[in-house]
Amino acid sequence: MWKPDRNSKKALFEQIADNLEQRISYGEFPPGSLLPSERKLAEQLGVNRSTVILAFAELRAMGIIESRTGSGTRVSSSKWGATPRHTPNWSRYSEGGSFLPNPPFMRRIREALTQHPSLIDFASGELAAELAPSAEIAALMREQQYTGYLGYDNPQGYTPLRQSLVTYLGKYRGIQTTESSILITSGSQQSLFLITQCLLAPGDAVAIEDPSYCYSLPMFQSAGLRLFRLPVDRQGIQPGDIRTLFKKHRIKMVFLNPNFQNPTGTLLGSEERKQLLDVASELGLPLVEDDPFSLTAYEGAPPLPLKAIDPVGSTLYIGSFSKIAASGLRVGWMVAPNAIVKRLADARQQMDFGLSVIPQQIASEFLKSSYFEPHLERLHTQLLYRRDLLIEALEKELPDLVQYSVPQGGLHLWCKLVPEVHDGKLLEETIKKGAVFVPGSVYGSDAGYVRFTFARPKAEEIGPGIAMFAEALRELMG
Amino acid sequence: MWKPDRNSKKALFEQIADNLEQRISYGEFPPGSLLPSERKLAEQLGVNRSTVILAFAELRAMGIIESRTGSGTRVSSSKWGATPRHTPNWSRYSEGGSFLPNPPFMRRIREALTQHPSLIDFASGELAAELAPSAEIAALMREQQYTGYLGYDNPQGYTPLRQSLVTYLGKYRGIQTTESSILITSGSQQSLFLITQCLLAPGDAVAIEDPSYCYSLPMFQSAGLRLFRLPVDRQGIQPGDIRTLFKKHRIKMVFLNPNFQNPTGTLLGSEERKQLLDVASELGLPLVEDDPFSLTAYEGAPPLPLKAIDPVGSTLYIGSFSKIAASGLRVGWMVAPNAIVKRLADARQQMDFGLSVIPQQIASEFLKSSYFEPHLERLHTQLLYRRDLLIEALEKELPDLVQYSVPQGGLHLWCKLVPEVHDGKLLEETIKKGAVFVPGSVYGSDAGYVRFTFARPKAEEIGPGIAMFAEALRELMG
Repeated sequence: MWKPDRNSKKALFEQIADNLEQRISYGEFPPGSLLPSERKLAEQLGVNRSTVILAFAELRAMGIIESRTGSGTRVSSSKWGATPRHTPNWSRYSEGGSFLPNPPFMRRIREALTQHPSLIDFASGELAAELAPSAEIAALMREQQYTGYLGYDNPQGYTPLRQSLVTYLGKYRGIQTTESSILITSGSQQSLFLITQCLLAPGDAVAIEDPSYCYSLPMFQSAGLRLFRLPVDRQGIQPGDIRTLFKKHRIKMVFLNPNFQNPTGTLLGSEERKQLLDVASELGLPLVEDDPFSLTAYEGAPPLPLKAIDPVGSTLYIGSFSKIAASGLRVGWMVAPNAIVKRLADARQQMDFGLSVIPQQIASEFLKSSYFEPHLERLHTQLLYRRDLLIEALEKELPDLVQYSVPQGGLHLWCKLVPEVHDGKLLEETIKKGAVFVPGSVYGSDAGYVRFTFARPKAEEIGPGIAMFAEALRELMG
Repeated sequence: MWKPDRNSKKALFEQIADNLEQRISYGEFPPGSLLPSERKLAEQLGVNRSTVILAFAELRAMGIIESRTGSGTRVSSSKWGATPRHTPNWSRYSEGGSFLPNPPFMRRIREALTQHPSLIDFASGELAAELAPSAEIAALMREQQYTGYLGYDNPQGYTPLRQSLVTYLGKYRGIQTTESSILITSGSQQSLFLITQCLLAPGDAVAIEDPSYCYSLPMFQSAGLRLFRLPVDRQGIQPGDIRTLFKKHRIKMVFLNPNFQNPTGTLLGSEERKQLLDVASELGLPLVEDDPFSLTAYEGAPPLPLKAIDPVGSTLYIGSFSKIAASGLRVGWMVAPNAIVKRLADARQQMDFGLSVIPQQIASEFLKSSYFEPHLERLHTQLLYRRDLLIEALEKELPDLVQYSVPQGGLHLWCKLVPEVHDGKLLEETIKKGAVFVPGSVYGSDAGYVRFTFARPKAEEIGPGIAMFAEALRELMG
């Protein structure tokens, strides 16, 4: 992002006017389009609002922009000659299309993190930089010879990675499978996107957990699906609820995250797992099992996934490296019946012509390397340490004001607030203090819940971050 | 892919029966699902059909599969206990969804290439392995320290790559832009997918070239767009045709590939370019300019893209590394007004949560490195050499039977066949002889056209490959 040069002899407002004029002439802001507000631009460029007001005045004097009270500042459309030439009405185009934009809270959080990278981040559902195996991956890239063919990949994904995953899934997840049953994706998000786009039609009813990560994904609404809720308690969902929803709404698929569920951290009970598979096979109903967190289990072996104990093949299994290694690799996978793998692979070709071979090569080497086991062990220790730091901070800063269960795996802690406060106000106030979290309503819950991701901030930030949150909460309590 | 072991003491058919039983028990072929045909399986496993027949008989005797005349061989559904348990009807699910499958010819070609990797490949629209800068990329991976943060990327793409592209686009394509106007995509395919999904609604009319690469993309039909044709002659399209289509059908967007058009190789004339931009600004109509081939121009500077001479900002510009470096990197870009970049970036987050950082780092380093210029020079020489080998072979094998214009850039030669033969039969016959091409009808043309990609086969394969094609053609001429 361009910023004005504070050591230049040219005044800041002149530099900004020049930069805007250039961006307008390059087409970033076409004739008639709306410029960012004075406030926003000041924030982006790190200057006072008055400096932007001066820059706008300069451009207005040159006839390049026009401001009208209440409708912001636009690029002039009259400057472009006497003949009626016009640029497409881009804002109308960008409002069209069948893709819904992300929910406002998520966009607000992303915007805040882009503008203030120093915010203490309890919001991004990923590992901190220092928990990712960056050094190991850099070493693998140096050691290995990546001189393979860089053409388009196999539509199901890089074959050696699928072979490595057959071993990995057998060893770590108790899943017996074959490389032809595996589809490599860019992560759980793409797996879910392919399933909702290719196997379901608009109007279809599906069941999702409540609360659930799925509510934060507008892809479910964009695909025109009708969503029905399976309430999550301490043992996870009640399998009997699925039968009720099936009778009432003819649900066509069930989306589940049974191991350290996002956002609640719940582990589905082993009795519930059996009942769930019974209901699914009784109704001939597919289960989509999203399993990104199992290998983070802090102590002991992680629970076996549904897929490993599924007697008739009701399960579409989704896994990923994002939460156990590095989200930036963008490598995930699905295990599914052959017909489904082929269908989704074919559709994905139309969307993006498949994935880059390079991250897949790296992921495959990493799985087979002697780095993988020690990395997992270090990850467990680090996550447990951070979870305990978070709990310590909550107990210190907010005794009696929060309620939560202690998660045994995963990256998140789900927290009920005892005082009643306004979700959006709490978020804004916390951002002002210097931290950010995700309001529970993003996951479909009632107001008054918060998801804290303890894997993302630096360990030494957790205490101060919770202090900021506590301060914001107390201010709103008045 | 598993193959039976010919040195094993176990009979081939027993090995195959064991393997199938395992794949069935793992869920690759759930109860009730259809197995591949005997013929297909024999081909995949490299055995005689009779061996597969014996393996099937074995599995039938065990009650694992059932064959019914005319409806193929299925996994038994009765084996699964007395209670009515059933697996989801996966084939019904895989036929649902709003994504159309790829056109039959494209699937047939992909299948043939998967099963017989030794086919001489005039079909895949990409560079041969030896034309890609694999050694340079491997060297960059060794030399550079990729220890950056491996978290989720900026939704618009890796910032240093966007900065490198600002320089690249200015130097090589005459496009003045800023990093905030650039969206990194996984290639032109994803750029087009985002545009059709996010900026257009089902029922919208759009104009595409005839013939055109777009016809081979079911994404246009999947998005429910109404397609109208702009015939391509030697100078490219007639800009006046756009006005006619706009009046008649209210087209909302025009998709163009002005430089060495796929499949015809045509270069849009410079007079036509100006008229086109006039028509677009007169009608306020967006132009989508796909520009993957410009830098392959065999001699002299490639023509400036529309985007570089577009006075009012009508153009959405699409570029990619796939045709000038390596398709397996999966790195492309769009240059667009700010509102459009933000909208598409937000939608892409929902589909796949953004791209892997690693190929973007590599692409950025490659662009800035001293490897880039020499690579382009070598590419020009090699493409020109292969084009001339193809023309030589056509003149030798098929004098008077084919008509074509000599392309001055790009990877393809577009060829009219003088004799009338059946598209599909010609394809099958050529595959039998050992080569493969794309029938012109895939691009929306009448029967009797062929696209030969001379960039993909090895240089020494071009002559023999065309000899095979000629033999197939002559046989069908009777």
